[in-house]
Amino acid sequence: MTESALPRPLATRKQDTLHRLTHDIDAWVATASPNGTPYLMPLSFLWTGAHLYLATSATNPTAKNLHQNPHLQLTIGTLRDVVHITATTDPTQPTPEEAEAFATKAGFDPRPLPNYPFIRATPTKIQAWRESNETKGRLLMKAGTWLP
Amino acid sequence: MTESALPRPLATRKQDTLHRLTHDIDAWVATASPNGTPYLMPLSFLWTGAHLYLATSATNPTAKNLHQNPHLQLTIGTLRDVVHITATTDPTQPTPEEAEAFATKAGFDPRPLPNYPFIRATPTKIQAWRESNETKGRLLMKAGTWLP
Repeated sequence: MTESALPRPLATRKQDTLHRLTHDIDAWVATASPNGTPYLMPLSFLWTGAHLYLATSATNPTAKNLHQNPHLQLTIGTLRDVVHITATTDPTQPTPEEAEAFATKAGFDPRPLPNYPFIRATPTKIQAWRESNETKGRLLMKAGTWLP
Repeated sequence: MTESALPRPLATRKQDTLHRLTHDIDAWVATASPNGTPYLMPLSFLWTGAHLYLATSATNPTAKNLHQNPHLQLTIGTLRDVVHITATTDPTQPTPEEAEAFATKAGFDPRPLPNYPFIRATPTKIQAWRESNETKGRLLMKAGTWLP
């Protein structure tokens, strides 16, 4: 990783992160089976301000892994403009307004599909960096709380 | 995921995949700890024609996970132009020529760094797709062998 710009201060990184959470459509989603086999898949998401909603068939490995092991990491952005999220999932479903917003943003509506529940992910840790000169100061959220 | 183009035939997907393996610099690398905690990180890679070499500090979670659990998934490309690789790692180190090629391509030379061995990943399965209309026919390599 080479350096290409001055490192952003925390406030800028948070602003850029919230912009990506609000406007980006897809995330890389890494889960693991109970025996530790990793699984990585892109999925569309909706950010509600506190949670991310994902949707994938209950028969897909991502959903099956999370059913047994609710820990995941997600990234949004690009390989050199990373928003890195550690989160846990629970079966809470979105409100009708949130589900509608997901379908509009994703261009894909899971609601009429059989066996296709939403997955709610709650971030516990969020980091943001572009290149190696942004490794320092990349922590934006810790234990579920945004840094001031 | 919406459709934006005709699905590519297998030969085109393989050609596009080999182009990305040869020219792309970074990959998303998903590993898991033995107790099943997923970890997702971008890392630079070198493709030798049969293996990918990665490099990260032996004290980083990616290296620690792979030391105990050699299974990983990597993706290269973008969220809607995915090369998806399932692989296993072993401690084989690159030849001097391969290590030099890694440093040149990555713009980052791990060789002088302490406790920074290369990691060799051997693909067992490779898939490539762009949008949902390319889900069918995405399998390019199975059990370590490219499909004809």
